[in-house]
Amino acid sequence: MASHVNEAATASMRGSLKDTALGALRGVGQVDFQAAVPTSLVILAALWVESWEMGLFAVIGAVVSTVTARLLAVPRDTLSQGLMTYCGVLGAIAMVVYLGNHPSTYVMAVAAAVACTLVTATLNHLLNPFGLRAFTGPFCLVALVMVLGAPSFERVWHGTPATAVTPATPRSPVVSWTDLWQGFFANVSQIFFAGTWYVGLIMLVGLFLAGWKVGVFTVVGSVVGLLTAWALGAPAALIGEGIYGYNAVLTSLAFGVVLLRPTAWNHGFTVLAAAASTALTASLSVLFETFGSHTFTWPFNITTWVLLAAVPLLPRITRLTDDS
Amino acid sequence: MASHVNEAATASMRGSLKDTALGALRGVGQVDFQAAVPTSLVILAALWVESWEMGLFAVIGAVVSTVTARLLAVPRDTLSQGLMTYCGVLGAIAMVVYLGNHPSTYVMAVAAAVACTLVTATLNHLLNPFGLRAFTGPFCLVALVMVLGAPSFERVWHGTPATAVTPATPRSPVVSWTDLWQGFFANVSQIFFAGTWYVGLIMLVGLFLAGWKVGVFTVVGSVVGLLTAWALGAPAALIGEGIYGYNAVLTSLAFGVVLLRPTAWNHGFTVLAAAASTALTASLSVLFETFGSHTFTWPFNITTWVLLAAVPLLPRITRLTDDS
Amino acid sequence: MASHVNEAATASMRGSLKDTALGALRGVGQVDFQAAVPTSLVILAALWVESWEMGLFAVIGAVVSTVTARLLAVPRDTLSQGLMTYCGVLGAIAMVVYLGNHPSTYVMAVAAAVACTLVTATLNHLLNPFGLRAFTGPFCLVALVMVLGAPSFERVWHGTPATAVTPATPRSPVVSWTDLWQGFFANVSQIFFAGTWYVGLIMLVGLFLAGWKVGVFTVVGSVVGLLTAWALGAPAALIGEGIYGYNAVLTSLAFGVVLLRPTAWNHGFTVLAAAASTALTASLSVLFETFGSHTFTWPFNITTWVLLAAVPLLPRITRLTDDS
Repeated sequence: MASHVNEAATASMRGSLKDTALGALRGVGQVDFQAAVPTSLVILAALWVESWEMGLFAVIGAVVSTVTARLLAVPRDTLSQGLMTYCGVLGAIAMVVYLGNHPSTYVMAVAAAVACTLVTATLNHLLNPFGLRAFTGPFCLVALVMVLGAPSFERVWHGTPATAVTPATPRSPVVSWTDLWQGFFANVSQIFFAGTWYVGLIMLVGLFLAGWKVGVFTVVGSVVGLLTAWALGAPAALIGEGIYGYNAVLTSLAFGVVLLRPTAWNHGFTVLAAAASTALTASLSVLFETFGSHTFTWPFNITTWVLLAAVPLLPRITRLTDDS
Repeated sequence: MASHVNEAATASMRGSLKDTALGALRGVGQVDFQAAVPTSLVILAALWVESWEMGLFAVIGAVVSTVTARLLAVPRDTLSQGLMTYCGVLGAIAMVVYLGNHPSTYVMAVAAAVACTLVTATLNHLLNPFGLRAFTGPFCLVALVMVLGAPSFERVWHGTPATAVTPATPRSPVVSWTDLWQGFFANVSQIFFAGTWYVGLIMLVGLFLAGWKVGVFTVVGSVVGLLTAWALGAPAALIGEGIYGYNAVLTSLAFGVVLLRPTAWNHGFTVLAAAASTALTASLSVLFETFGSHTFTWPFNITTWVLLAAVPLLPRITRLTDDS
Repeated sequence: MASHVNEAATASMRGSLKDTALGALRGVGQVDFQAAVPTSLVILAALWVESWEMGLFAVIGAVVSTVTARLLAVPRDTLSQGLMTYCGVLGAIAMVVYLGNHPSTYVMAVAAAVACTLVTATLNHLLNPFGLRAFTGPFCLVALVMVLGAPSFERVWHGTPATAVTPATPRSPVVSWTDLWQGFFANVSQIFFAGTWYVGLIMLVGLFLAGWKVGVFTVVGSVVGLLTAWALGAPAALIGEGIYGYNAVLTSLAFGVVLLRPTAWNHGFTVLAAAASTALTASLSVLFETFGSHTFTWPFNITTWVLLAAVPLLPRITRLTDDS
């Protein structure tokens, strides 16, 4: 009898181990709203191509945040879909980018991943009554306070690493062909703090693996981001590194694939949202620079929360799940 | 048969055109919570008296934001009352004040008006469960991010215009008779970024046209603003330009005319709220100056949201529409 | 007959006077979540030991905020438990600490206490749908805007008082035994802006009077605060003054005594929360320093709101009042 119970418990734990492993893996793709495992694998490979630190910290973040969710008994579906994981992935990568690769940074990455899981629960609870979701807001909040607080602590802070420095860029808005095509791909990889064009190319392939529609709206977002930044006269060097377009890619994927029905008006709204997130990037960069923090994916989150919360009072725009 | 349908459609469109036109016009007065058309006309005239740029951009903002709401199928009543318009009016004026009169500013004014309409829907959706309304919060949010982001974009930014510069004022709190009476009227016009006393006088006449109660609470708000700023020792020059009183006027109109029942306790609460919004003006000016933005009507919005949200737990204060 | 009515009215007023007096007294202890009268008396005595200004302003804040609540007809239970009072106590103390002891500061203390009562109603109304409470958030908001705005007003601002200056501390993270044991007690008194160790000791005695569990979680919070600050490498001088630990004490009391059931997982969550509030102290200090405000008990409030809002989606953590 006891052995039966033990067997059942082991089986349940095996199931749960598989759920946790799946959740950790899918969490990488869920940064771009994709649960398809091949997409996650390709994006993870792209991160290792960018640098081994980035790949390693992505894995640390994915594992720690998923295990945290498992320990706190988060429901199986949420867990295995990677929905408690994706913010931890970004949070851990942010630590190595903004604190540098030091022993203490591994501790901070674990802390960030745990905090991301908790704040994901927080934001989903708080935003649910308004028909909104956490998106990457938990990562933005956790990274904001950790990067802000780090220089106050001697055992954590070892000076600004090279990865966190934005080089003094020429302000010229004259965009070259190289800026354009490299920016097109870098818009995809900058979501993960990677500014290398071929890393973005690999990720784009991964996104097309999740479905042609996913790939198309990634392309649309990247192009809208480029055009908006060019039209407003953003510095060409920053456009080329994807700084002005990664939020447009996320916003386009959110509205185009996940949130809205495929109507002409909704597609127009998606393009408008992607353009708005690009413009907002400048405002938030100025704001965060003032008190020593960074833009992260705040423009995407704020644009998407604000415009999605407007939808219930705008009958022309229709959500994919209009059960309310 | 087809011609009948066409006729009906044309009639419906005519109706809708009339609704849109009415909404655009009433939106000017709705900045001060007034739907009366004569009030809107007088305020609009006052804006043209201040400067043709201000009058023109008010019209652009009113038309663009109302048309945006019409295209997005906002319900007829909301549209024709100007409730999706008033933030766009202020948003477009803010663009010419803070960016200067350049060709690109017209594009920005259109963008601001569209954004104001969308964010009006957002805030009304988010605040409704708490018994609150958007007030001029959408304008404050849109103007905040646009003024903050503008200097990052070469094609948008042509240097700080004279209209956006606060001259270095003597800090002396010794208020002259001229400061007082000019400030009394400027408190009314500063709501629309106009610091000229006779523009405020014209607007005050327009507000009395909407009803004696509206006029009286405008006067009460302006006087409370003057007295509070004087008692705290605000710089006399700023008091004379209406900088310390326009939020008190809006707050007094909100609580005195729109939100609370006419009881003695409620009148006291209205005066307290107007005084609080004046004090808050200094705090927010310091805050926004730090990261390069402006105070707009934030003090009015924050004071009114905070104190209105307190009312359900304070039985002595009673709302005009207590159906909850 | 008339005399009967008068007697009844007098009796009701006597009752109400007693409620008001009790509320004012209990409000002191409610800063630490304790309604026990002896605890309030001991904490109040400790404040007078720190300085007569601190004791006097605590009394002013307690009386004014409770009378405000009484005038606005706040329900008897809320009133007499001190739940509309505790923020006013802190608000009035903050005024004398940050503005100095001048005649105008007494006016500001009254204004702060009135505002704290109103904002307590606001936050409780806004946070209730999410299962959260105001905690000391109203005090933080009121003190934030008043300290921020004060230097703009000639009649209010008389230069930064000595009490508001953080001395330039050596950044060394090497903690001495004196730093540790003084910090242990100062963590308790810094909640009320007092950095003297024996003031903290007296308050700790008062908290043990409210029950051994209250005392134990005060000790736990203080120790977790010390350990976290030491592990991260915070400046030893600040640890010794309780700057890095008072939020951990409040957080530990909130989760350990008031909010969560006594299970092992919940105790672990309480320790995690106390550590998080300590780390957050650095982030918020940097943020508030940028625009000239102070940390107050923001780290406690933010940590507790964020982690408490996560609980409904984390089945392993259980609230004391799980009626939802």
